[in-house]
Amino acid sequence: MAGDNSKHRTTVTIYGQQYKIVSDESPRHVENVADYLDQKMREFKNYNPYLDTTSLAVLTAVNITDDYFKMKRKLELYEKEEREEE
Amino acid sequence: MAGDNSKHRTTVTIYGQQYKIVSDESPRHVENVADYLDQKMREFKNYNPYLDTTSLAVLTAVNITDDYFKMKRKLELYEKEEREEE
Repeated sequence: MAGDNSKHRTTVTIYGQQYKIVSDESPRHVENVADYLDQKMREFKNYNPYLDTTSLAVLTAVNITDDYFKMKRKLELYEKEEREEE
Repeated sequence: MAGDNSKHRTTVTIYGQQYKIVSDESPRHVENVADYLDQKMREFKNYNPYLDTTSLAVLTAVNITDDYFKMKRKLELYEKEEREEE
C-alpha cells in the first residue's frame, strides 16, 4: 500500500504521529486502516503500559499478522472446498 | 495473541530486537508470524531507508492491516455466497 507511486496521498494520524500514505485505495479505506491500527495500538498499550512505542508498534503488528495468518488459512479452506465442489 | 495468559511463551527476534510472545498457538506458528513481520519490515526499509524504527514498524503494520482488510472482504464475499447457496 504505502511506498508505491499510485494516485492518492492521504495523511493519517496513528498513535499521535502523522504519516503520509500513498495508495491505490480510496482515502476512506486508508483512514479505516489507520484507525484500526491506532485503536489496536491503544488497546495494546492498556495491557502493556511500560512498552516503548517501537515495541508497541511491533507487537501490535505481530497481533495483526497473526489475525491475517488465521484469516488466510480460513480463506484457503474455503477455496479448497470450492475446488472440490467443482 | 501476545498479552494473554495461555501456555506457550516463545522468544522471537524481529528487526534485531527480541520479544517474548505469549500465545495459545504453537511456537512454530509464532515464529512464522515473527519471520513474516521481520521480512516485511526489512523490505519496507529498503524502499524507505531514512525511516526511524517506530515509523517503519507502524507503516509495515499499516501494510499488513491493509492486506488483512482485503482478505477479510474476500472472506465475507465467500461467506455471503455460501449463505446464498444454502
